[in-house]
Amino acid sequence: MSVVTIERKVLAKNDEIAAQNRARFEQHGIFVFNIVSSPGSGKTSILERTLERLNGKLRVAVIEGDVQTDFDAQRVARYNVPTVQIMTLGGCHLEANLVQDALKNLDLTNIQLLIIENVGNLVCPANYDLGEAMKVVVLSTTEGDDKPLKYPGMFRKASVLIINKIDLLPYVSCDLTTLKRNALQINPALKVFETSCTTKAGIDEWSDWLMQKVTS
Amino acid sequence: MSVVTIERKVLAKNDEIAAQNRARFEQHGIFVFNIVSSPGSGKTSILERTLERLNGKLRVAVIEGDVQTDFDAQRVARYNVPTVQIMTLGGCHLEANLVQDALKNLDLTNIQLLIIENVGNLVCPANYDLGEAMKVVVLSTTEGDDKPLKYPGMFRKASVLIINKIDLLPYVSCDLTTLKRNALQINPALKVFETSCTTKAGIDEWSDWLMQKVTS
Repeated sequence: MSVVTIERKVLAKNDEIAAQNRARFEQHGIFVFNIVSSPGSGKTSILERTLERLNGKLRVAVIEGDVQTDFDAQRVARYNVPTVQIMTLGGCHLEANLVQDALKNLDLTNIQLLIIENVGNLVCPANYDLGEAMKVVVLSTTEGDDKPLKYPGMFRKASVLIINKIDLLPYVSCDLTTLKRNALQINPALKVFETSCTTKAGIDEWSDWLMQKVTS
Repeated sequence: MSVVTIERKVLAKNDEIAAQNRARFEQHGIFVFNIVSSPGSGKTSILERTLERLNGKLRVAVIEGDVQTDFDAQRVARYNVPTVQIMTLGGCHLEANLVQDALKNLDLTNIQLLIIENVGNLVCPANYDLGEAMKVVVLSTTEGDDKPLKYPGMFRKASVLIINKIDLLPYVSCDLTTLKRNALQINPALKVFETSCTTKAGIDEWSDWLMQKVTS
């Protein structure tokens, strides 16, 4: 068995625009998180359940990033929150300048929490700072307990790990203890939540923690 | 709701090296497929089941692409096939030059089927030809039936779709008819298999079809 490696480029220009975004968010007192995961791990479902729970308590806006379609923006917009769709048309991640453009369509003076849902991709979005206060990585139990070790970049950059679809644990070969141990080995500072959007388990804990984060 | 778009660059250099790889594969009569999917959809499990079925019938070699770890190469090497690990260390897809380098570690005169397992990523690998005869995209039922419409690039480029984890259908909100309709809407030429690596459903059909492809 042989090993071949490639190098990663530093994205200085993106970081510069991300810093500008971050300064604007701070100026307006907006808490921003960037939610990332593989396709189909349940990011949008978690946002739907979170928006239900935060309804009437916080002024929330959402930026939806997708390769194609505005399905997710349509789902989120039902919760009566200002929603901007970024369609990357093949692009595999959001970049800070796309978020900067999207902000033109939001009234920043009237937002407490801005949620940016990234393209479904567990690799590339890790390298692109958007100006957020934290990254939230979602991992579905169906993806297997080895994923934090195989895709460490994202888990290293994230502040929060949401382990989703815990209702499927009886049917998949994923050991929750191993998964958490692997994630914390990569990033011991990770705050971990366990959720199911089907049974709503863990949604209140996550939403209330988030509420506390935004208002404190 | 507003839409912002970005452009995709054409990767001429990669295509040039992919053409060189393809010429070498043809020269040696090697059938090559590139297996792609999101993290955790079951690519490696499908390869394990396929290698079991093809054992003794075909001379197979495997190139494993991973961001980090050689877990998958270790799993595959148990089946006594020559295995080369490419570790991208953060890179989100394989490129033709990485495969070209990996080929130095394989005896091309003694291979009928070469399987290249790409990095778990449903977006980026679509744009990088490696010189393969076909792309096989794996989608797990747990990812949801809307994914072909949301990530059309990969489904457009693939010749085969393997819908995996069909044993989980009773527990997830994925309609198999809708999934297939969405996939065939993007690419009517897709050959579709339905598999479970837990029950082994569909593995023989896929493996026998592949065997036929390689030897015909």
